[in-house]
This record gives sequence, structure tokens and C-alpha cells, in this order.
Amino acid sequence: MAPKTALDSIVSLAKRRGFVYQAGEIYGGSRSAWDYGPLGVELKENIKEQWWQTFVRGREDMVGLDSSVILPKQVWEASGHVATFTDPLVECLQCHHRFRQDHLIEAYEAKKGRAPEEGMDSITCPNCGTAGKWTEPQMFSGLMKTFLGPVDNAEGLHYMRPETAQGIFVNFNNVVTTSRKKPPFGIGQIGKAFRNEITPGNFIFRTREFEQMEIEYFTAPADADAWFKHWVDACWNWFIDLGINPENMRQFDVPEDERAHYSAGTIDIEYRFGFQGNEWGELMGVANRTDFDLSSHSKASGHELAYFNQATNERYTPYVIEPSFGLTRSMMAFLVDAFTEDEAPNTKGGVDKRTVLRLDPRLAPVKAAVLPLSRNEDLSPKARDLGAELRRHWNIEFDDAGAIGRRYRRQDEIGTPFCITVDFDTLEDQAVTIRERDSMSQERVSLDKVTGYLFERLGK
Amino acid sequence: MAPKTALDSIVSLAKRRGFVYQAGEIYGGSRSAWDYGPLGVELKENIKEQWWQTFVRGREDMVGLDSSVILPKQVWEASGHVATFTDPLVECLQCHHRFRQDHLIEAYEAKKGRAPEEGMDSITCPNCGTAGKWTEPQMFSGLMKTFLGPVDNAEGLHYMRPETAQGIFVNFNNVVTTSRKKPPFGIGQIGKAFRNEITPGNFIFRTREFEQMEIEYFTAPADADAWFKHWVDACWNWFIDLGINPENMRQFDVPEDERAHYSAGTIDIEYRFGFQGNEWGELMGVANRTDFDLSSHSKASGHELAYFNQATNERYTPYVIEPSFGLTRSMMAFLVDAFTEDEAPNTKGGVDKRTVLRLDPRLAPVKAAVLPLSRNEDLSPKARDLGAELRRHWNIEFDDAGAIGRRYRRQDEIGTPFCITVDFDTLEDQAVTIRERDSMSQERVSLDKVTGYLFERLGK
Repeated sequence: MAPKTALDSIVSLAKRRGFVYQAGEIYGGSRSAWDYGPLGVELKENIKEQWWQTFVRGREDMVGLDSSVILPKQVWEASGHVATFTDPLVECLQCHHRFRQDHLIEAYEAKKGRAPEEGMDSITCPNCGTAGKWTEPQMFSGLMKTFLGPVDNAEGLHYMRPETAQGIFVNFNNVVTTSRKKPPFGIGQIGKAFRNEITPGNFIFRTREFEQMEIEYFTAPADADAWFKHWVDACWNWFIDLGINPENMRQFDVPEDERAHYSAGTIDIEYRFGFQGNEWGELMGVANRTDFDLSSHSKASGHELAYFNQATNERYTPYVIEPSFGLTRSMMAFLVDAFTEDEAPNTKGGVDKRTVLRLDPRLAPVKAAVLPLSRNEDLSPKARDLGAELRRHWNIEFDDAGAIGRRYRRQDEIGTPFCITVDFDTLEDQAVTIRERDSMSQERVSLDKVTGYLFERLGK
Repeated sequence: MAPKTALDSIVSLAKRRGFVYQAGEIYGGSRSAWDYGPLGVELKENIKEQWWQTFVRGREDMVGLDSSVILPKQVWEASGHVATFTDPLVECLQCHHRFRQDHLIEAYEAKKGRAPEEGMDSITCPNCGTAGKWTEPQMFSGLMKTFLGPVDNAEGLHYMRPETAQGIFVNFNNVVTTSRKKPPFGIGQIGKAFRNEITPGNFIFRTREFEQMEIEYFTAPADADAWFKHWVDACWNWFIDLGINPENMRQFDVPEDERAHYSAGTIDIEYRFGFQGNEWGELMGVANRTDFDLSSHSKASGHELAYFNQATNERYTPYVIEPSFGLTRSMMAFLVDAFTEDEAPNTKGGVDKRTVLRLDPRLAPVKAAVLPLSRNEDLSPKARDLGAELRRHWNIEFDDAGAIGRRYRRQDEIGTPFCITVDFDTLEDQAVTIRERDSMSQERVSLDKVTGYLFERLGK
């Protein structure tokens, strides 16, 4: 058996500790989507908060938006998604399972190191093992549809968004008018998107229901290249600042024939997830969408989505630079990158292996754990009072079950930056021991200074 | 014409200032959903943050969850939604428009003050005006469907959740195991839900795509009534604490024949929105769902969703108390309740009318506005520097367009608690004037103390 990778360990840890559960698990489960448990939802919210603060609230040239998931079909016709958001699908003539042709070819290449010489004739069905018996490829739409109103007809047909971006474009005039922004400026949005992926997989990496964090940045066409570079750097630095090891990231300049239909240039930031076959996966991409979207919607809707520059008395359609992040992919990268195994002293004077998630404290789902040294009628109330006080500011765990060393291990494993032990001395000196996760160093802090101690090290 | 109500004013203000836009407006718009602009998304996020802090992070007996929107049909069969989440629909024989029968009857009663004596024969089609020509009512499902995978067949049929609650129930065992909570404890979730309403309307009050904030609180059956009361009070107090006038709220004990199929008791908290006809509307409800959901899913899935009490050596299926909030309804209530018209002094020694949103500072979408007294090469950079500093902590506007009084009015109208004016004295004394929204009182604060001044009054 291959040695366990950080990715394997994270998938197992995520399930065991309540970061991520399989959606609909008690009914056999689904690979279409995942549910985020108590720790997962906190980690995910922390990532969103950091993103929003860095890219939206923190910048004078940005505003936020939250547009609807379901949009009329005209939006997706104008955007090109109805016509081109399709993948080639082939069906095994033996077992009638369907697969994306490009994924089958990629898998073949990853395994054999060369292209299939006789095309689909070289490829074996992953389901039943039959070799080379395939239908001709058919194009298949990645859009998910639903029907609004009382009858399932063309009038009621709507699509669920495959990207949050279009909700931004169709509101361009609304935002310009109400927020009085002018290019260069951008609109940021975090929200769900839905794609009918034929082969979801790799844990939370490729799912049919997922979350995006997207920016559409509007600029004069002449400045588009400079802003493209600005955004690639800003996105790269965001991951680094939040603790990702730059050796596990790389940029990929997407060749023209692999780009989305709207893009005049795309750089993907990839992370070394450690997948089988190809260990790198796309974390986010920055695309130059030119004036494609605003022009398309202007033409289709009859509303001119453009900017009138009063200084030069000129009207122009801005170019759009789009940094588009996968939220759950980002979460997966932060987890994999934080996964560490080292050693911690045990009570017998030796060392034990420990697993520690070295998450940036801003991302850690639990900021501190309050641990009474033992279950005791004097210690427990003291510890609970401290927990209640700290819970006014942060997500806090209270744990009084088992040996203290074991409780430290439980917190290390989920990345809790600080463990606060209430012991028998606390009853005398009104102080507690605060242990830092990475260095395992301990400090005695008086009870009335704990909140301030944590504020300095965690922020709010 | 009837005098303009606070509701009319808020709808108009919300559109004009970028709180809310009609979804797909450039394509003719939709009443199914609304888009939240730069101010709307901030207000909505602030409400979510307050809710999460009060009910999830801030309580030792609560954890969070974020489950998927799309769930297999088995979940909705077991929950009873496939069978009972339906409404009676009638079709006008003349124009073939369809309506909810109960809504037609309610509208008749609201207008005439009595029930229609001859049933549907008394009722006129709201679309074409034909009287009493209706089909027999047919039951119509409020569930929205979509298809996953390559073909639109029974295997691919999935439903979009009409409530976030079921994602919590099906994960009951997962959460108990991974978070080691025991009853009484609860799971909170914020997320989108989708209902195929036949007659969406009243602005953001009834939409097909909306957001919920839900708690499922698990308790021993004997304690259910006490916890029901606890949660009604806790929810009521949450609105009051965030500034809603208690005179505009009331509790409605829902009679048995109007309750949802799962409920053994429901109290709705209603808000006086000021709708035509009936001015009150449901803001949230607390229901006693008994062990209906956990038992139904246990039976349907074959996984026993129950709690084993080690102390008494007994296994039982917990009762569930469910506080369920409409997020966008809450937002609408906070806006309507904050809407005020009073008078402000003008530069001519008289007074002008002003509109002010007296939002709690924790909810206000913009926390402070930085206003250079005039566009000037000395004042503007000073003001921008201050804006950049404050933007590290809060959502801040910068506005240098127009007379200062007009800029104050713009901020009052969107509920900004503090306006900070950088004037020519600032260049000398390194201080600014901070004006408070409600009292309009002004204070001179030195530049290096502004952040601290706001921290004290806004928190983070």
C-alpha cells in the first residue's frame, strides 16, 4: 500500500472530527455535495471573512453584492453558457454508464504517460472494464435547470448559476448608479454555484454544489493588463499571508485552446493537493474577460451596460478582470497545508507522535479550549465561567473528558491556537496556564488578563 | 392616494440607495428573488453575524452546520414534504392563469370582510376579471426539482431544500459523534432555501429563493415544553436587543389546523410590516417538531437517529424545538422599524426634513463616513489616509461630493452611525469632527484617537 499522504490524512481527519460529512450519508450518500460540520462551518466562515475583509471591505475601490442563484434563461443565453457550457459525453455500449470523454483521455494519459494511440478504442470502461466499446461523444450541458411557477414549461425554465459572475454583470448599472463608483472599481461576491459535473470527485475539490468567491473588476480597456497583473499578485499574496507554503503553489498560464470562451488570458493559481495521477489542482483563476459579458448583456437586454466618463465626455464598455476563487478548494488547501506530524513530550518523560493543524489563528475554527484539569466541583464552574466570558468574542470549546495530554492532542489536531488549563492553583492564584499550539510553550496568565492576552494574539 | 407608509418609503429607499435590486432587472425582472446591493449585502451579513454570535458561537449548548441545498429525494419523502408540501391551485377557465386557491379566498376576505358565500363562484380572476370560472383545485408541489447526472430521469431527480432543517436532522448522528454534545443541545444553520411559491410578493417578504436562519434544538421529551418557552423568549429578545420596537411585534399561537404537518405547537413572532390588507406578517416561528423528523428518517434510512444516555442506560429519540427565522424578512423588519423622519438644522438657520435609519450600529451597513470638507489637495489625502486606516476594521465610505449638509443627509438615510469631517483646522490641530447620527451632536476628536473612539461605540 502507498504511504498515507497529507491529503489522505486530511480526508480522514475531516470526517472523524466533524469538518466535513458526506451529504445525505444516511441515505447512501452523494458525491454531488458535502455538508460542513461544526468545525468545517467555522473554518469556512473564517475564510470568507478574511476574503471579504481583504478584497471588499478593506478596499476603497471595491463593493459587495449578493445576487440570486436562480436567474432567467436569457441571462445564460446572453452569457454564452447555454451554447458553450457543455462537455463531451460518451456512453459504454456494454454497461451504459456515461463518462466525460476528456476525463477518460486524461486518466489514460496520466496512467500511461502517452495519448491513447487508437483514440477511444484504447480506452477501457472504468465501470465494467469493457475495452473500446463507446458511443460517439455527445455534448452535454453543465447547467442545472429548474422550473418556477405552476407548470414545467419553457416559460418556467430557469437555470441555477454555474458561476456567481453573471449576477454581477447584469447589475453593473445598478451598482454604478447607487454606489457612485467609477472604473477602476470592482464588485465582490461570495455564494453558491451549481454545475452538473459528470464526474464529481477528489473529496470537496470537484462537486456539483459548491461555493465561489468572485471579483469582477471593471477597468478602462487600456489598463486591463496592468490590473490583471495586480490581481494575480494580490490573490497569490492572500494565500501566502494566510499561511500557505509558496512551494506548494504555482501559476499556470492557461493556453488559448484551454481557456473559457470569454477569456483573453487566464492565469490559474494551482495548489499541490497531492491527488493521484496529477498532484496539482486549480485553486483559483484570474481571467481577462474583456468587454465580452457587458457587451453581450447590452446587446441581449437592450440596456447599455457601459460607463460614461464625464472628464473625457466618452462612453466606453469597461474590460473586466475576474479573480475567481473556489471557497471549498481554498478550505481544502488550507487544511492540507496546515497538516503536520511532529512529537510532543508525554508524562513518562518520553515523546509521543502528535498531529497538529498549523492553521493561521485567523482561520482556526476553535480559537481556544478551556480545560479544567479534572472534573471537580471547584474547577469546573471556574472553567465554565471563563468559557462563557471568552465565548462573547470567539468560538471556544470546553472539554473536561480524559487526561490533559489527550485533550491537548484533540485540540492540536483541529488547529486550536490556545489551550487554557484551569488547575488547583487557579483557586489560589486566580491564574491559568495558557499553552500555545505550535511551540507547546506554556505561560501563566491571571484570569482577568486572559481576554486581553487572546485579543493581542487572535484579534477579534 | 393613500399616504406613503414606512414600508413604501423603505422599498423606494432600498432600490434607490442600493440595498436591494430586482433580480434579472435588465431582462424584465423577476419577483422570484431579489439581489442585494453593496449596502444590502453588508446589512444582511451583519444580521447573520449577530444571529450566529448570539445563538451559535455564544452558547456552549450550540454548534453550527452548513449542509447542502440539493438533497436526494429520499430525504424529502421521509420528511413528508413530497406528500404534504403542496398547495391547492386553481386555473381561470378564461385566461388560463393559475392561482393559489387559499390566497384568492384570503384576498376576498380581506377586501369584503367576510368569506365568499358561493365559494369560488364569488371570486373574480385577478388577471382577466372573469368571475367564477375556475377549474377544480389541484394540489401543487412547492418543492423545486432539478436533475443531477447525465440524464433527466427518476435516478437523477433531486429536490432543492424548502427548509434548511432537514440537512440538520439527517446529520444528527454525525454531529453527536464528532462534537460529543448531548441533549439538551442544538445545531444552527444559515442558508438558502427554495420554495416554488405561486404568488411571490410584498417585496423581499415572500420570494421563491430566500435565506433562513434555523436552529434545531434537541431535548429529552419531558423538557420540550420548557425549552419551547425558552426559545420563544430568546428569539423575541434578540429582535428587541437589536432595536425593534416591541409595539411592532406580537406573538401568534398558531391553531392546530394551520400548523405544519410536523408541529405539535407553533408560536409565530409577527412584525407590523404595514402590508395592505393585513399589516402584520410572520417574522419567524418556534415549532415543537416532537420526534417526528428523527423518527421518520430513522425509519426510512435504517439508521437509528437517537441518543443513548449513559447515565440512565436508556436510548431515546429527542424532541426538537425549532426556532426558524427568515433572514430577509428580518432585514425588512429592521429597515422598516429603523425608518424615521425628523428635522435637522440647515445652514440658513432653519430646519430641513431629514430621513434617518436608526439602525443599531451593529447592523448599520456603513459604520462611518469620512468626509473632507471640500475637494482640496490638502484635505483629500488626509481624509483618504484616515479612511484607509478605519477600513482595516469596518466598512467605511468616503464621500467628497457636494455640500457637507447634503452628505450628512446621504449618510443619515442609510443609517451610518458616525460622520467624520476633515476640515481646514485638521491641518493645524490634527483633529476631526465626529457627528453622531441620531442626536446630530458633534465632537472634536484627535486623529490618533479616532479608531479607539469608534471601537468604544461600535465594537468590531
